Amino acid sequence: MTLKGNAVIGQSGGPTAVINQSLVGVIEGLMQSPGHENVKQILGARHAVRGIINDDFIDLTGISQDMRAKLGHTSSAALGSSRDKPDAAYCERIFEVFKKRDVRFFFYIGGNDSSDTCRLVNETAKADGYELRCFHVPKTIDNDLVCNDHTPGFGSAAKFVAQAFIGDNMDNKALPGIKINIIMGRHAGFLTAASMLGRRPDSDDGPHLIYVPEVAFSQEKFLADVDRVYTKHGRCLIAMSEGVHYEDGTPLVVKAAKDIETDAHGNVQLSGSGALGDVAAGMIREGLGVKRVRADTFGYLQRAFMGIASNVDGREARRSGFLAAAYALSGDRDGSITINRVSDDPYDVEYGIVDLAEIAAKTKLLDTKYVIDGCDIDQSYHTYAFPLTGGLPFVVTLDKFPRTSP
Amino acid sequence: MTLKGNAVIGQSGGPTAVINQSLVGVIEGLMQSPGHENVKQILGARHAVRGIINDDFIDLTGISQDMRAKLGHTSSAALGSSRDKPDAAYCERIFEVFKKRDVRFFFYIGGNDSSDTCRLVNETAKADGYELRCFHVPKTIDNDLVCNDHTPGFGSAAKFVAQAFIGDNMDNKALPGIKINIIMGRHAGFLTAASMLGRRPDSDDGPHLIYVPEVAFSQEKFLADVDRVYTKHGRCLIAMSEGVHYEDGTPLVVKAAKDIETDAHGNVQLSGSGALGDVAAGMIREGLGVKRVRADTFGYLQRAFMGIASNVDGREARRSGFLAAAYALSGDRDGSITINRVSDDPYDVEYGIVDLAEIAAKTKLLDTKYVIDGCDIDQSYHTYAFPLTGGLPFVVTLDKFPRTSP
Repeated sequence: MTLKGNAVIGQSGGPTAVINQSLVGVIEGLMQSPGHENVKQILGARHAVRGIINDDFIDLTGISQDMRAKLGHTSSAALGSSRDKPDAAYCERIFEVFKKRDVRFFFYIGGNDSSDTCRLVNETAKADGYELRCFHVPKTIDNDLVCNDHTPGFGSAAKFVAQAFIGDNMDNKALPGIKINIIMGRHAGFLTAASMLGRRPDSDDGPHLIYVPEVAFSQEKFLADVDRVYTKHGRCLIAMSEGVHYEDGTPLVVKAAKDIETDAHGNVQLSGSGALGDVAAGMIREGLGVKRVRADTFGYLQRAFMGIASNVDGREARRSGFLAAAYALSGDRDGSITINRVSDDPYDVEYGIVDLAEIAAKTKLLDTKYVIDGCDIDQSYHTYAFPLTGGLPFVVTLDKFPRTSP
Repeated sequence: MTLKGNAVIGQSGGPTAVINQSLVGVIEGLMQSPGHENVKQILGARHAVRGIINDDFIDLTGISQDMRAKLGHTSSAALGSSRDKPDAAYCERIFEVFKKRDVRFFFYIGGNDSSDTCRLVNETAKADGYELRCFHVPKTIDNDLVCNDHTPGFGSAAKFVAQAFIGDNMDNKALPGIKINIIMGRHAGFLTAASMLGRRPDSDDGPHLIYVPEVAFSQEKFLADVDRVYTKHGRCLIAMSEGVHYEDGTPLVVKAAKDIETDAHGNVQLSGSGALGDVAAGMIREGLGVKRVRADTFGYLQRAFMGIASNVDGREARRSGFLAAAYALSGDRDGSITINRVSDDPYDVEYGIVDLAEIAAKTKLLDTKYVIDGCDIDQSYHTYAFPLTGGLPFVVTLDKFPRTSP
């Protein structure tokens, strides 16, 4: 049975390049799917759950086709986001507003924390016997949601990382040295692994070394890896996840900060934007005596850079939102929309739905079958991730031109 | 009179997204311009002047149309680059190789240091009575060459910075806080100023504050600026040039490092990739007591990112190279190719040539007429810089939608 009432949409957590595609998808699903006549107002919660408890909404009912098209191509959460993690009391307040507003459809676009919020709100409503359709629409550049082949937002972030590495590899080739790039992903290495997507097989292209959080870090091995590559190529381009940690679970950057404290240097660097890069660069300078070591931290650029979003990613983000609305209007169902792959080539996916409890607050990690010797990513990862970024710019080099050296 | 002999092309200094367009331009100029029959071999110097003194060249004679097209769209110096700054003795070695190789045409693609190298080589040849055509082809993301309206490489870097800020502004709007982005440009603020190119007039878009090296930095004013913006918008997006310095000329990052030394914290951060961002963020945290302050340093990404080079920039880089070759084949002339603007709208330029001594080792700064109150860039800068980046992605916000807040 289709409920009748108002709908609330929220966007939560870190921005992505396509999170507004999901927002537009939900809106269009509510405007167009069977049962759409039962939806009265479409309300956007300003800054996620915080907007709900503050009763702070934007009325999106009747938003034009033109505006929807433009909004879909705008990166980052147009409704505003929040880092709030609601507990039971917070959910109670959400639920009170929903009742007051006659909200019968709730859509929350976000990562695994957001799916947990969705689950909590849903359970609060059920306990109260209040009919509410609760849907989680997946979003995360980390690509770490269970029950999914991949997650909207990842493809575009992966495309940014890949394009950055294609250029940085040419940079590193032109002015050889050791270069470390720090990439987002505290627990899951999918995005860091994407650094290899533009690397040409059978070339000297970097990244030459890739470190993901799924494999414990060893300083000794790291220095041996860098030394080997640097000796072979006269240069070394490294992709390192911000979440890289030692065997005992201590993040590299935290351990380094402790060492600094021990040395009475203060922990100035810990909150630093380039902290981990500096730590890793310092290891190489001290351990290998190489002077030209440089580190960049990609920072926020990788999550909301404008203008190079992946088309596939945008399409899937939109469709996920649309289907959440379509399911919500189709009957007594709550859940999270899933994307699973049907085939690699031609690339094809199918959409499904799972219970909120199945996905909430769980984390998927990169399958270590892709990791080679703890310091590289296998070419088979290209088969997995490349369809998600779509076409990448390609480069040529002059390596095969005749040398006239004496 | 057109000389007969071989040609050498080198690429120097930091990479850009279009430096290979200039390389292809020189090659095509040598293959196609009147007098091209006098050019025997086209040699690419591997890693700039270092390749010349090591007699290490690639033979580019007869490089195919297809390869030239692909090469033009590959960022960073395909011949390899170098940071060597030749002195008279070094130039003597260059000149010896040129004589041995019967080199009569020399093209050096680079910034103001490279034009000085070109000048030195030219003078060495003249002193020896050896006929040699020496051409400098401008390249720098810093846009700091005199005698030019702008410089190839700048438009693409400016486009990257503008696109990054468009996305980061939406990010900052979604999750409000204080965000600092550090941009390249030790002496000239052109690239930092480009952070405003995607900012919509009459909006709350950031960057809200822009600091360039042309204006002395004052910590007191900085904190007052940030406080004002943060109070007004509840957020603050800041663009800061890496070259920002105090009235006495001390770079912000160096003074901070000294302070850290005084506090017995060591100078670990000075070489850090995020050093300046951390310093500025620390100032705000301490001075204003705001917790959510984040800093990113764009680093190498802004100079060789693949896939979003400016079309105008690419075309001008190519034409500059082509014309250098055409001039070299046309008679007894050395010099540096210049670009000057004929009109803003429709955007149009004319190319010229100046003596190497006029451009060598000089630096052009951002006209302070563009700087507002030491902390912002005037909209008139858009008229100057936007034609160089070409179209930027645009965003929409939901700010004008009806609020349903109680």
